[in-house]
Amino acid sequence: MNFCSKCGAQVTLRIPPEDDRPRHVCDRCGTIHYENPKMVVGCIAEKNGQILLCRRAIQPGYGKWTLPAGYMENNETVYEGTRREAWEEAGATIQDLTPFALVNLSFISQVYLMFRARLVKTNFTSGGESLEIRLFEEAHIPWDQLAFPVIRETLRLYCADRPRGAFSFHVCDLHADGRVG
Amino acid sequence: MNFCSKCGAQVTLRIPPEDDRPRHVCDRCGTIHYENPKMVVGCIAEKNGQILLCRRAIQPGYGKWTLPAGYMENNETVYEGTRREAWEEAGATIQDLTPFALVNLSFISQVYLMFRARLVKTNFTSGGESLEIRLFEEAHIPWDQLAFPVIRETLRLYCADRPRGAFSFHVCDLHADGRVG
Repeated sequence: MNFCSKCGAQVTLRIPPEDDRPRHVCDRCGTIHYENPKMVVGCIAEKNGQILLCRRAIQPGYGKWTLPAGYMENNETVYEGTRREAWEEAGATIQDLTPFALVNLSFISQVYLMFRARLVKTNFTSGGESLEIRLFEEAHIPWDQLAFPVIRETLRLYCADRPRGAFSFHVCDLHADGRVG
Repeated sequence: MNFCSKCGAQVTLRIPPEDDRPRHVCDRCGTIHYENPKMVVGCIAEKNGQILLCRRAIQPGYGKWTLPAGYMENNETVYEGTRREAWEEAGATIQDLTPFALVNLSFISQVYLMFRARLVKTNFTSGGESLEIRLFEEAHIPWDQLAFPVIRETLRLYCADRPRGAFSFHVCDLHADGRVG
């Protein structure tokens, strides 16, 4: 950030009065520009014991498999965002969303919130965000071709809970080196 | 938003190619400025059956009671943010954080994530954000002097779960008119 989005003047990175960390502050109008983590919402959509994965048509992770997920938009709920992403990335309609995992990616200031959901139907098309949509048995999950560590960890937690026939709500941290804490 | 924070030129509100909603786009450098919901993290801190409330020293809600909560900062986890807010607003050290409620406030693009926590200790001082810190028995919660509907709803869910001796993870929507859905 170089300029004030309100008045167009230059900003300076400094600690405002009564604050404890540097912010971009406008030298002219005084606006303090706070920056905050972004939320990503997504789901493990299940149908007849199979789960829905999408093969990415965009970078990063082009050609690799992922769960439908993406940035929350303003003025939507976590449920609405999750359903929107399932529709945009997989042409999928989902129901019965249940919170499953919250993964902190603090090194890139992201919080992933992943739900389990019932896949009602999919048209297996994606409007350009995915190369391919497919339902996978657990035994056929392409572990070595997953797009992101956070997706691998979400699926790992899911597969660990599944034999119990009960799912917990998990909170974990994913670090830059791929370590889970 | 009027100006590009990257290059300082004017921005226009328009729908970028392959997008489906208006964004502030820079007419000069082409940067698309996405805006996303903010996460607020906070806690119900318990000690000997009592819970910690803070009386706000700032607007909005000056003089009213609230749970320690605030915007997540970049590069922190939801746990770190919750502990920081408990410290900043109540001089409180907390442990054993358990996710308790996620409240969508989509009309103001906020997501509240509230934890239950064990209050280890508090120095009952707050560094200026609170007028007063106090531990309340459930029967003495000042329901008519709470600062925000989201705090009231969080405490209502907590008091509803409590007699069962077990707490669920709740997801709900709070609307502009105060209705919970």
